[in-house]
Amino acid sequence: LQSKLAKLGSSIFSQMSQLAAEQQAINLSQGFPDFAPDNYLLQRLAYHSQHGANQYAPMPGILPLRQQISELVKRCYRRSINPDNEITVTSGATEALFVAIQALVQPGDEVIVFDPAYDSYTPAVQLAGGSTVHLNLQVPDFSVNWQQVAAAITPRTKLIIVNSPHNPTATVFSDADWQALQQLVCQHGLYCLSDEVYEHMVFDGAAQLSAHCYPALAERSFIVSSFGKTFHVTGWKLGYCVAPALLSAEFRKIHQYVTFSSFTPAQYAITDMLAMHPEQVSGLAAFYRQKRDQFVSALGSSRLQLLPSAATYFQLADYSAVSELADVEFCRWLTIEHKVAAIPLSVFYRQPTDARLIRFCFAKTPATLNRAAEVLCQL
Amino acid sequence: LQSKLAKLGSSIFSQMSQLAAEQQAINLSQGFPDFAPDNYLLQRLAYHSQHGANQYAPMPGILPLRQQISELVKRCYRRSINPDNEITVTSGATEALFVAIQALVQPGDEVIVFDPAYDSYTPAVQLAGGSTVHLNLQVPDFSVNWQQVAAAITPRTKLIIVNSPHNPTATVFSDADWQALQQLVCQHGLYCLSDEVYEHMVFDGAAQLSAHCYPALAERSFIVSSFGKTFHVTGWKLGYCVAPALLSAEFRKIHQYVTFSSFTPAQYAITDMLAMHPEQVSGLAAFYRQKRDQFVSALGSSRLQLLPSAATYFQLADYSAVSELADVEFCRWLTIEHKVAAIPLSVFYRQPTDARLIRFCFAKTPATLNRAAEVLCQL
Ligand SMILES: CSCCC(=O)C(=O)O
Ligand SMILES: CSCCC(=O)C(=O)O
Repeated sequence: LQSKLAKLGSSIFSQMSQLAAEQQAINLSQGFPDFAPDNYLLQRLAYHSQHGANQYAPMPGILPLRQQISELVKRCYRRSINPDNEITVTSGATEALFVAIQALVQPGDEVIVFDPAYDSYTPAVQLAGGSTVHLNLQVPDFSVNWQQVAAAITPRTKLIIVNSPHNPTATVFSDADWQALQQLVCQHGLYCLSDEVYEHMVFDGAAQLSAHCYPALAERSFIVSSFGKTFHVTGWKLGYCVAPALLSAEFRKIHQYVTFSSFTPAQYAITDMLAMHPEQVSGLAAFYRQKRDQFVSALGSSRLQLLPSAATYFQLADYSAVSELADVEFCRWLTIEHKVAAIPLSVFYRQPTDARLIRFCFAKTPATLNRAAEVLCQL
Repeated sequence: LQSKLAKLGSSIFSQMSQLAAEQQAINLSQGFPDFAPDNYLLQRLAYHSQHGANQYAPMPGILPLRQQISELVKRCYRRSINPDNEITVTSGATEALFVAIQALVQPGDEVIVFDPAYDSYTPAVQLAGGSTVHLNLQVPDFSVNWQQVAAAITPRTKLIIVNSPHNPTATVFSDADWQALQQLVCQHGLYCLSDEVYEHMVFDGAAQLSAHCYPALAERSFIVSSFGKTFHVTGWKLGYCVAPALLSAEFRKIHQYVTFSSFTPAQYAITDMLAMHPEQVSGLAAFYRQKRDQFVSALGSSRLQLLPSAATYFQLADYSAVSELADVEFCRWLTIEHKVAAIPLSVFYRQPTDARLIRFCFAKTPATLNRAAEVLCQL
C-alpha cells in the first residue's frame, strides 16, 4: 500500500503524552486541563443522556446550541450570524479545520500557513490535493511579515490559514494584523481559515479580536472554535465552524460524510452551560492569566528563559542556558530524566530550525504547576 | 467558490427526518431507535464523566475499549486481533468509512460499489480523487453477480466496498458471496472496505458472517462497525475500524487529523457495557427479529408488498399496488398526507431506477410500529 502521508507518524502530542505516561512524568506537553470541568456541565450531560437525547443530532448541530453560539459571537464581537445557515457544530475543532480545508482546497491549490503551525493543517491540505506554502513567523516576537505574505501570493493561492491566539507561541494578532490580512484576502480573492480555538484566553487587557470583527474578511472566512478548550473538556470533541451561508453549505456537504453529526448529549449540556453560565466564558481569560502568573512566578529562579505568553494556555521557554541538545532530544531527556514533559517547537516548522524552544501547557492545578516548577528550577 | 460536491445537497436522511418533524409524522425514515438505551450504559456515562474522564482519549481509542472489541471479535468470529495496532476507535462508523477511503484511494483509483449503496461511499471516494464504478445488485433478491464484478475490475481498481448486512435492502452475504469476494480481492491485489454496522442483527438462524471469518480477505480489509447501532445510541457517534497493522497505521495517520479522538466518557461507558453485558450484543438479533415480526404482522392487511428482511433494522416495501408516484414523491406524499415517513430507494442508485420501493426503519417501540402500521394498512 502506497502511503498518502508517507512522512508522518504519530503526532507529537500522542508521542509526548505516551512517553509522559510511561515515565510517570508531569505532563505539560499535550494541551489539556488536569482539573475537573464545571459540575453543572457534567450534571447536564448526565441529565440529557438520561432524558432521551441519545440519537442522531441534526447534521449541522442542534438548533439551540447554534442559537447560543450566535449569542456568544454577538456578545464577544458584536457580529450577527444566522444559526440556520452560518454555523455548523463539529466533532472537535480538528474536524472543523479538516472539513473547511476539504471544502475549499482543490488539487493544485496553494495554501499559506505560518510556521510554527499546528500540525493538522498541512496533512489536511495535502489530502485535498493542495500544497502548503510555509512562511516563518518573525524572530523574536513571532509576528507576521505581511509584505512577505503579499509576495508569496500566486495565482494558485486559494487560502490563508491563521491562528490567533497562536498555538504554540502564545501570541495574538493586533488590529493591524487583522487589517492587513483582510486587505490581502479581499484584494486577491482568497479565503481565510481562522483557527480561534483559544479566543477566550487573551491576557493583560489586550483586545479580544477575531475574524468576526472584520466584516469584509468574515465574508470570506471559515472561523473555527472549540468548546473543549473553553469548558475544560478537551475529550468531548465538540467544536464549530462559522462561515457565510454559501461557504457553510459547502462545509456541510463535506461534514455530513465525514462524521455526519456529533455526540448529542454533549450538545445539549454545552447549550445549557452557555445559557446559564456565560461567566465561565467571560471569566476564562482571568482564570488562565492567573495560572500563567503562578507558573511564571514559580519559575522565577529557573535558568529557563520564559518568552511572553499573551494568550492561550501555553508558555514558551528558551532552554539554551541549560542544554545543548536539540529540542526534540531535550524534551525526551526532560521527560525521562526529570519527569516533566513538554513539546519541542521545531516539529511545527517545515524548514529545520535550531531555536532552543519548548512549550509548556499551564492548564493545570496549582499543585501540578508547583511540582513541575520545582523540578524545572533545578535544571 | 467552486463546489467540490456540486451535485449534492442534504442527505436523504436529513431531508426526511426534517420533513417528518415539520409534519409531525411518525418517523420510520432515518435509521435510529425511538426507545431508550440500557440504563446501565447511561449510568456509566454519567459516572465516568463525573470521575475525571473528560480530556482527550488516546488517538486510537482507550486501550480497555480496544481490548473489549478484540474480545467481541473473538467471540463472534473466532478471529484474534491485536488491540494495540489493529483497532482504531472512531467518531461513528461514518468517520471510519471516510478515513478508510482517504487512507486507500489515490487520484485516478477506481472503487467498486454495489447499488443501492449507502450514501457516504461515493462522496468520500470523490473527495479522495477516485471514481466509483457502480454495479446494481440483481433483481429481485439483491444478490451480487460476482462474474459481473470480475468483469468490472480494471488495472485502476483499488477497492471494493461491501456492506453485509445490507442497508437498505436488509439482505446478507452467504458464505459463497464472501468466498467469491475473497477470491477476487486476493487474485487482483485489491482491498476491501467491509461496512458491517448491522453485524449483530441477522435473523432466522442465518449465520453471522463477516470479513473477519475469511483470513485472506481480512488481511486486505478495513472492517467497520458501530456501537450506535449495537447499543441503541446512534447519537453517541462511536464506531471502530479493524484492519491489519500496516493498514491500521495508514488509517490512524488520517484519523489523527480528521477528528484525532472520540468522546472520552462514552468510550469508558461502552467498555463497561461490553464487559458487563455481553448478552446485549448476543441478544440483539432476537430483539430486532421480534420487532420485524411485529411490524410485518401488523402490516398483514396492507396493500404494501413486503420484501424479505433477513437482517438490519430495515424493511423494504413495494408500493406499486398503492400508487403510481415515483418513490421520492411517494415518500413526500406519505409523510405529508399520511404522517408516516420512509426512505425512497432510488436515491441510493447512480443509474435512474423506477422500482417502487421504500424503506422503513422498525427500530421503534411497539406502539410506534402499531400506529404506523394502522395508517399504512389504510393506503
Ligand atoms: C489534539 S491533541 C493536541 C492538543 C493541542 O491542541 C496541543 O497540545 O497543541
Ligand atoms: C447518519 S444518518 C443515516 C442513518 C442510517 O444509517 C440510515 O438511515 O440508513
